[in-house]
Amino acid sequence: MDTTKKTIIVFSGDLDKLLAAFVIANGAAAMGDDVTMFFTFWGLNALRKDGVTGTGKGKSTVQKMFATMLPKTPSDAGLSRMNMGGVGSRLMKKVMREQNVDSIEQMRQTAIEQEISMIACTMSMDVMGFAKEDLIDGIEYAGVATYLGEADEANVNLFI
Amino acid sequence: MDTTKKTIIVFSGDLDKLLAAFVIANGAAAMGDDVTMFFTFWGLNALRKDGVTGTGKGKSTVQKMFATMLPKTPSDAGLSRMNMGGVGSRLMKKVMREQNVDSIEQMRQTAIEQEISMIACTMSMDVMGFAKEDLIDGIEYAGVATYLGEADEANVNLFI
Amino acid sequence: MDTTKKTIIVFSGDLDKLLAAFVIANGAAAMGDDVTMFFTFWGLNALRKDGVTGTGKGKSTVQKMFATMLPKTPSDAGLSRMNMGGVGSRLMKKVMREQNVDSIEQMRQTAIEQEISMIACTMSMDVMGFAKEDLIDGIEYAGVATYLGEADEANVNLFI
Repeated sequence: MDTTKKTIIVFSGDLDKLLAAFVIANGAAAMGDDVTMFFTFWGLNALRKDGVTGTGKGKSTVQKMFATMLPKTPSDAGLSRMNMGGVGSRLMKKVMREQNVDSIEQMRQTAIEQEISMIACTMSMDVMGFAKEDLIDGIEYAGVATYLGEADEANVNLFI
Repeated sequence: MDTTKKTIIVFSGDLDKLLAAFVIANGAAAMGDDVTMFFTFWGLNALRKDGVTGTGKGKSTVQKMFATMLPKTPSDAGLSRMNMGGVGSRLMKKVMREQNVDSIEQMRQTAIEQEISMIACTMSMDVMGFAKEDLIDGIEYAGVATYLGEADEANVNLFI
Repeated sequence: MDTTKKTIIVFSGDLDKLLAAFVIANGAAAMGDDVTMFFTFWGLNALRKDGVTGTGKGKSTVQKMFATMLPKTPSDAGLSRMNMGGVGSRLMKKVMREQNVDSIEQMRQTAIEQEISMIACTMSMDVMGFAKEDLIDGIEYAGVATYLGEADEANVNLFI
């Protein structure tokens, strides 16, 4: 077993949980670990291209409804608690700037630069109504079998 | 260490999180892994028998109140985000059918057929007011010591 | 690899999730395992000193706002589901007493007595506006690198 591999399933799209996921992933990569982030369900929002509405052709009405309701960028995401209609999220982003903590978009860029493997779950994309053109470049597309293969080689596997 | 064992603590009873848990569990079992799902708190709802109200005799008033408020079947469960009084959950089930994704009940049946070990946490049953007759057949009943014994033998352990 | 070490990231401050985290941690410690709990974000509330308002000097306005809104003790925490403005949380605490399940404060005390290593995440403290004097004695302070070092030595790593 490779003791330097880590996997994180990023299920949540909440700002605070995305922050936790990227801090752990980037921290492990900085320490030389091989890291895989597997984005499912709400977590897919963290891979969304700027300004993409996600309501492109080829989608069903229900998929378009889902896409319309999701936050448009990772930083638009709410908090998992005390979001208060977005106030909590804005407060947290303000404190993050005060404390010189990177934004989610900056952390995602660091993840790309550190060659963290970012995989979008294709089944979740179908359910949530995401197409490949809605998501950023440089990511991979795979299903649960790929995740399990990666997890088998890792010594730390988290679900966030 | 047995590298082909996986455990999942199913704490959440949300439709989207149950879906993630069963997809991972059934995927691992299909690949030949030995899988244990340990259902605690809201996750116990995923083991609920159809049509059981959960307000049987021998329960305290508070336990009956909890049982009454819980969704009656796994598919009645809401989403962890954007549930909007059940609208989100209905939308997701509609997309799942459109995309030929199995329902939670079908996935649970697959888990049984694949001989996934499904354990109901007895302490959670006490707190949430579940009796054995409220839950489906073919499951086991145990506490945290059993979970920890299983997790010690597994190479992937998730909390969902 | 030390097969008797466990780590738990306690991200959530919800009563039910704290209960799950402490039951697993105390259970593992009782079985002889070496356990590390790493408290981040809302989970930091579980380490809060009784009666501390968290609005001490040296904090920014936004940090004070966050501190003011957080529950004042672990037992004041809500549920992750069906909290209903605190009713759900009170119901669960009532059932826990009926069923002789320890309170969160009692479980935290047991964790201290069992020498579980409880670490407060310093980056989260900055973002959430916690100072060391807001938190109980006997805990450690560290960042993600310390967590990753502990996780590398553990055979079970959970994110709750």
